[in-house]
Amino acid sequence: MKLWQKEDVTAEFTRVADKIERFTVGRDQEMDHHLAPFDVLGSLAHAQMLQTIGLLSEEDLRQLQVELKKIYLQTQNGQFIIEKGVEDVHSQVELLLTQKLGDIGKKIHSGRSRNDQVLVDLKLFTRDRLWRVSKAVKNVFDQLINRSEQHKDDLLPGYTHLQVAMPSSFGLWFGAYAEALADDTLILQTAYRLANRNPLGSGAGYGSSFPLNRTLTTELLGFEGMHINVVYAQMSRGKTEQTALTALAAVAATLSRMAMDICLYNSQNFGFLILPDALTTGSSIMPHKKNPDVVELLRAKMNRLKVLPMEVMLVMSNLPSGYHRDMQILKEILIPAFDEMQACLDMTAFILEHLQVLPNSLDKPMYNLIYSVERANEMVIQGIPFRDAYGLVKKEIVNGFYKAPAPLKHTHEGSIGNLMNQQIERYMNEILLGFQSDRVEQSINKLIT
Amino acid sequence: MKLWQKEDVTAEFTRVADKIERFTVGRDQEMDHHLAPFDVLGSLAHAQMLQTIGLLSEEDLRQLQVELKKIYLQTQNGQFIIEKGVEDVHSQVELLLTQKLGDIGKKIHSGRSRNDQVLVDLKLFTRDRLWRVSKAVKNVFDQLINRSEQHKDDLLPGYTHLQVAMPSSFGLWFGAYAEALADDTLILQTAYRLANRNPLGSGAGYGSSFPLNRTLTTELLGFEGMHINVVYAQMSRGKTEQTALTALAAVAATLSRMAMDICLYNSQNFGFLILPDALTTGSSIMPHKKNPDVVELLRAKMNRLKVLPMEVMLVMSNLPSGYHRDMQILKEILIPAFDEMQACLDMTAFILEHLQVLPNSLDKPMYNLIYSVERANEMVIQGIPFRDAYGLVKKEIVNGFYKAPAPLKHTHEGSIGNLMNQQIERYMNEILLGFQSDRVEQSINKLIT
Amino acid sequence: MKLWQKEDVTAEFTRVADKIERFTVGRDQEMDHHLAPFDVLGSLAHAQMLQTIGLLSEEDLRQLQVELKKIYLQTQNGQFIIEKGVEDVHSQVELLLTQKLGDIGKKIHSGRSRNDQVLVDLKLFTRDRLWRVSKAVKNVFDQLINRSEQHKDDLLPGYTHLQVAMPSSFGLWFGAYAEALADDTLILQTAYRLANRNPLGSGAGYGSSFPLNRTLTTELLGFEGMHINVVYAQMSRGKTEQTALTALAAVAATLSRMAMDICLYNSQNFGFLILPDALTTGSSIMPHKKNPDVVELLRAKMNRLKVLPMEVMLVMSNLPSGYHRDMQILKEILIPAFDEMQACLDMTAFILEHLQVLPNSLDKPMYNLIYSVERANEMVIQGIPFRDAYGLVKKEIVNGFYKAPAPLKHTHEGSIGNLMNQQIERYMNEILLGFQSDRVEQSINKLIT
Amino acid sequence: MKLWQKEDVTAEFTRVADKIERFTVGRDQEMDHHLAPFDVLGSLAHAQMLQTIGLLSEEDLRQLQVELKKIYLQTQNGQFIIEKGVEDVHSQVELLLTQKLGDIGKKIHSGRSRNDQVLVDLKLFTRDRLWRVSKAVKNVFDQLINRSEQHKDDLLPGYTHLQVAMPSSFGLWFGAYAEALADDTLILQTAYRLANRNPLGSGAGYGSSFPLNRTLTTELLGFEGMHINVVYAQMSRGKTEQTALTALAAVAATLSRMAMDICLYNSQNFGFLILPDALTTGSSIMPHKKNPDVVELLRAKMNRLKVLPMEVMLVMSNLPSGYHRDMQILKEILIPAFDEMQACLDMTAFILEHLQVLPNSLDKPMYNLIYSVERANEMVIQGIPFRDAYGLVKKEIVNGFYKAPAPLKHTHEGSIGNLMNQQIERYMNEILLGFQSDRVEQSINKLIT
Repeated sequence: MKLWQKEDVTAEFTRVADKIERFTVGRDQEMDHHLAPFDVLGSLAHAQMLQTIGLLSEEDLRQLQVELKKIYLQTQNGQFIIEKGVEDVHSQVELLLTQKLGDIGKKIHSGRSRNDQVLVDLKLFTRDRLWRVSKAVKNVFDQLINRSEQHKDDLLPGYTHLQVAMPSSFGLWFGAYAEALADDTLILQTAYRLANRNPLGSGAGYGSSFPLNRTLTTELLGFEGMHINVVYAQMSRGKTEQTALTALAAVAATLSRMAMDICLYNSQNFGFLILPDALTTGSSIMPHKKNPDVVELLRAKMNRLKVLPMEVMLVMSNLPSGYHRDMQILKEILIPAFDEMQACLDMTAFILEHLQVLPNSLDKPMYNLIYSVERANEMVIQGIPFRDAYGLVKKEIVNGFYKAPAPLKHTHEGSIGNLMNQQIERYMNEILLGFQSDRVEQSINKLIT
Repeated sequence: MKLWQKEDVTAEFTRVADKIERFTVGRDQEMDHHLAPFDVLGSLAHAQMLQTIGLLSEEDLRQLQVELKKIYLQTQNGQFIIEKGVEDVHSQVELLLTQKLGDIGKKIHSGRSRNDQVLVDLKLFTRDRLWRVSKAVKNVFDQLINRSEQHKDDLLPGYTHLQVAMPSSFGLWFGAYAEALADDTLILQTAYRLANRNPLGSGAGYGSSFPLNRTLTTELLGFEGMHINVVYAQMSRGKTEQTALTALAAVAATLSRMAMDICLYNSQNFGFLILPDALTTGSSIMPHKKNPDVVELLRAKMNRLKVLPMEVMLVMSNLPSGYHRDMQILKEILIPAFDEMQACLDMTAFILEHLQVLPNSLDKPMYNLIYSVERANEMVIQGIPFRDAYGLVKKEIVNGFYKAPAPLKHTHEGSIGNLMNQQIERYMNEILLGFQSDRVEQSINKLIT
Repeated sequence: MKLWQKEDVTAEFTRVADKIERFTVGRDQEMDHHLAPFDVLGSLAHAQMLQTIGLLSEEDLRQLQVELKKIYLQTQNGQFIIEKGVEDVHSQVELLLTQKLGDIGKKIHSGRSRNDQVLVDLKLFTRDRLWRVSKAVKNVFDQLINRSEQHKDDLLPGYTHLQVAMPSSFGLWFGAYAEALADDTLILQTAYRLANRNPLGSGAGYGSSFPLNRTLTTELLGFEGMHINVVYAQMSRGKTEQTALTALAAVAATLSRMAMDICLYNSQNFGFLILPDALTTGSSIMPHKKNPDVVELLRAKMNRLKVLPMEVMLVMSNLPSGYHRDMQILKEILIPAFDEMQACLDMTAFILEHLQVLPNSLDKPMYNLIYSVERANEMVIQGIPFRDAYGLVKKEIVNGFYKAPAPLKHTHEGSIGNLMNQQIERYMNEILLGFQSDRVEQSINKLIT
Repeated sequence: MKLWQKEDVTAEFTRVADKIERFTVGRDQEMDHHLAPFDVLGSLAHAQMLQTIGLLSEEDLRQLQVELKKIYLQTQNGQFIIEKGVEDVHSQVELLLTQKLGDIGKKIHSGRSRNDQVLVDLKLFTRDRLWRVSKAVKNVFDQLINRSEQHKDDLLPGYTHLQVAMPSSFGLWFGAYAEALADDTLILQTAYRLANRNPLGSGAGYGSSFPLNRTLTTELLGFEGMHINVVYAQMSRGKTEQTALTALAAVAATLSRMAMDICLYNSQNFGFLILPDALTTGSSIMPHKKNPDVVELLRAKMNRLKVLPMEVMLVMSNLPSGYHRDMQILKEILIPAFDEMQACLDMTAFILEHLQVLPNSLDKPMYNLIYSVERANEMVIQGIPFRDAYGLVKKEIVNGFYKAPAPLKHTHEGSIGNLMNQQIERYMNEILLGFQSDRVEQSINKLIT
């Protein structure tokens, strides 16, 4: 039942109605389940505002609040469903209200369009999920810092061009990905800030003739600010999704690269680490195989997710301003991406916790030349210009006189001997504080209690 | 139950086994259901070949054929399921065989790896679906030719730069998209040919020490040829998907562009056609609206599908040769794309059948200047060089003397007055013949009866 | 001349040396010209630091500073060239120093690799260009706010689904794009912050055995902080480019959408605005045409630029950590993008300044129903629930009784009657302050004077 | 000088004219140089046709042919230039004709628009370049077959999941990429066929009122057929480019993957092959390095090229039918891609010729288990079902009893012992014949002599 359904659908089309319904609704109900709690929050704020401008009586508001909070509870304990034949989450909530409260239920759509309603739902949902992802990123980050400290003395050949280059360490390797995730979290924060702006009151994208108080709903929903211009509020559809998915893609790029490293280091030809059996699979024909399937799937899932910003672009490119139904499809791109990302972050934390670093990787003769820069640097300290020292060492190597220098002493900021993981942690924590998630939480709690 | 499961999974990991299972299996069982009939076909061919090289007795083969044909029937009537705990379609089929036939069932995996097994499944599946899509494209094509003939005299302004340019017609407009689909079908055919090559016998990508007869399985499965080199056979994973999705993307580009035209022509500002009510939706706040939601969703779905080749690229880029588990994810990209495309083609045919062309679109004064080239051409026929005629007409327009010339007479090949739809149909039919789908069908029928 | 050229290139390859040179150098010298001033800045900071740790004497430093400042001046007045046969900007600068200062020039590469040298160049370049782009965005923003204020009373039909929907205004339309650019500037700022971190001292990605003072070079170059972990500093290659290009793509999406609107509104079928003749082109065959070529090219250039983040992804996907020469190609993607963006922003400002808004667009009878929500809202204010009012208005329309209500009164935040452009400007200005560009400028000035 | 320039450009804009010119023309003249010979060919065919329908006298035609052939010669020997101030190649050719022949030169634009003129240029250019690329692919293919034969007995570990899996050989490895290129050539052929259709006569996309003979120009230019419907002929702009770039991307995917393999195999950790010094570069700080820069750049350039189909998509998505100036930008995407591809194919052939395969790669103890499937297969031949043999071998391995079986005997089609390179060559040659390039060449020769 569509609340604004036209009555003049001719009998001729009845037979295809189902087909069209399937085509237009698609996976939309499934997607809308994720939006349900946020739809209720938006309605709570909108109703409270309508009362202040005289479109709802105090009693109307009280009754609406009671019912909306009940529905909110249902969305939290899994009891909320979108009934068969009801088009979307907005209709379902309105239906529940109208069933219970009659005309009062009908009044809540004043000064609101489905367009700004779904917009506010998506903003609240995206804000929520970006924060959750950030916390899961922090969890992986902590794991990386842990392992970095634990293995700061486990050396590893450092590669450039896939060629053995200079000494590195697992301390450096784990720490590098931690710091990468910190920068990714900064990108997540920007997406969060774009999601943290109130579109409510923009109606179908051209505002309303009611004297809505948008500042009030902005505060009630804990938004950092509002999308001021109503045409722009509508235009933020697509941009919000794009920015959120771009941020997820940044995290995905970090994780997929780490997965590639692990697959390589786990190969017999490198042999720097071992994956626990639970994370490997055998072969159906080769009895000796232990394949890193879980890590490969992590890599593939993350690589795949990186395409999503482009998917949004292809849908949105060259659409003139103003709402188009095309935007509904964006929900199917955005919403599952968060679940995928969450699962991958959880699995990454698990992998990191359990992968076993092999010691003494650098001791094989194959890696002897790795200290050649150290050798040149020794000469520099004795006053030989670097370019000349470089030539001398090369001659030593060619003539077989080269010997690896005394034990490694890297002391500068961020080097093998001075990882500065605490500073990386401080950097991460400052970024997380920037989300101001407390303020959001308080506003939401106030609305629903 | 994985048939090649390692036994040494430590107790420590039992608690996370489910989580890892969920992560690695993902939507794979759902995907594998689509592959089931093709897995059976591959097994039928493989078994028949094994008998010819002495790895199965005639009796073994007979029993296997009986059971495999039963399973094939189950895949056709919806009775085939992948049991809980069984990893994939290949394991399920082998399990059924082993339950029924004991050791004989175990013998069928000789000279075969899951790698070439899933490859052959995907080849057969992709070949099948590309042909189905081509037939659905043909259906839309026929509708377009129909409407083109029906409206060959309904004029329409032709635009360049979104500016009113020259007279066009609905005959031309419908016919243009028909011809576009013919070229798209040529692209589908190339994808079909790449899918129509036998990878069976390549094992895990490095062949087998059994004296397999790959020519025989190539013939039995109706393939046009085989992927000869076994390393390449494995490398075709990813390429087959890429090429198939590229072909779907070509069709999608045609449909999304047509959808854009329809949305524009249906706007009040153009008003060249009307969509039936069943294909429009009202607004939740604007009582006067009739929105072309179905066409917009068609546009969005098709635009979205265009990203899929890039999705495959991101997963595959820079992976060294040899199988990686990443490739499993490609199934989730490929398989649903066919369903989406089929649904969109069906809906397009429906839209085309029911959209109502408005006559006399060109009669509004706004379109007067549309005949200016005709006017210039009149002068050319009187011997004035085109560049000079062009200048004269421009002067007529500026000075207000311009008059539209006598009724339009376009006669050359492919013009308003000479659509040549029959030739377009002939072109399409020749392309469809090139699929040689009959030969394929006969081979399959022979295998399963 | 490559400073670290191997001497053992056999005669056999001499004939192909040129070809290989062309292939490997490619457009790299052209790209490196853009990096030249930043390479000198990095060297100034590095040299000053080397002196503090005893690898350069005070006199060495003084002489290096004199020469480096001369070279910097050359990069500013167009006199700097990369000589034929010199591989890149780093080699050219080192060559100039060595020619002038002999051994002192050779000493400057101590504790530095080309890897962190090009990284620091790219960071400084990207930081600089992102700030320039932000200022050009601000220029377009100002133009939009101007035109918004100027046309706040010029009404325009607002569309949803490309269907006439509700009244809008050019005040809203211009203002919307201004606010969009403010959010885009926030995205630019994040990219700027990722570029504003010091990689110097990370060497080839594994640090140095010299006791480098990375905190000092961080301060000298005005960086907000450093990439702490040296492996991560190297890993930021690719990520810096990706993030910068993503930010440019956000601006591009806004501009291309505005261009699409302009092309549509400039079409005879809309007729809401006129482009000046200088911005239109005629047709080679249609004497009556005035095509919006400039705006179309703006749209195309911006749409094209949106692909660049994906281009970086394809190059970087699945590369294991550590430097690969592949990354050199990223320069060719990044550097020209800034010029393209700058040109497009300049042209947009010009278009916005000169496009002519046509008044009274809303007066055509075609747009009558646009006030239907206002009519329903009138009823709501009289106490009728919105859903019922909606039904009543629909009946009025069907029965021909509908009349447009009294003049429009939209008063809420961000609506036609209350554009709140000042608040949008305040929002933009706060974002621009967040770049802290003053601090950067002061540091750079201190280095070069 | 634009031949159809409007005269009413106001003085006010003169000062910005240059800027606008730069913005609109961009790199178009540079691009158009590549189209020049094809523009002349199109004009030769068009003129000959105009004479048959009475729009040119026999004498007009004769004079035009003389001049056009002269210009064609200039395009071949580097003398053709687009003069400063002349907008594009079409204007330049027409200008030269008009300067020489006066009114006769002006007549040639009858029945033609710049739209179908540039279309035919692009079709002829693309057809030509796709054939050239195919020949360069064949050259690499031949090199691969050569090396495959040469190294058919050089064994190599075959990997799955980057884990040592089963024995492979350089014979297989080289041959695999050869066969991959054959399939890529099939994709190139499809793009070639889409480029091989005549758009001439479609004018600005809506045909002409002249009785043009499009069948005649189709034959004269050696096209396989014509784009029949004139609206579709115009719509093929974008599709032609898209399909050509998709085909190049397929080749690029093959080359980049091979480059990845080479970089890996060249790493000390694999050590299966050596690159000649001319193809490696040293490090600026590590005296011992020999980096595979050329191969890495090949990989990066090819990965980068893979984005181009998406770039076209982003420009074209959601543009309504009919010409838009956006399409001009496609030239800048398409034309340089061919040069890049050609350079990369040449470099690949060079690399393949000179890379040195190291013998006995498989002899290291690390690779012992690689024969485990062979061992299981031995048991199968003795009558043990494969699943049981698999279990027995696994036990042998765990208990330390496993021994590698007797020398490898792979005999089936496409296996180590039976590469079937001749069949791969036959497959390739058949595909190349399918281009029917002789017919095209003959037509072109007839036109210009």
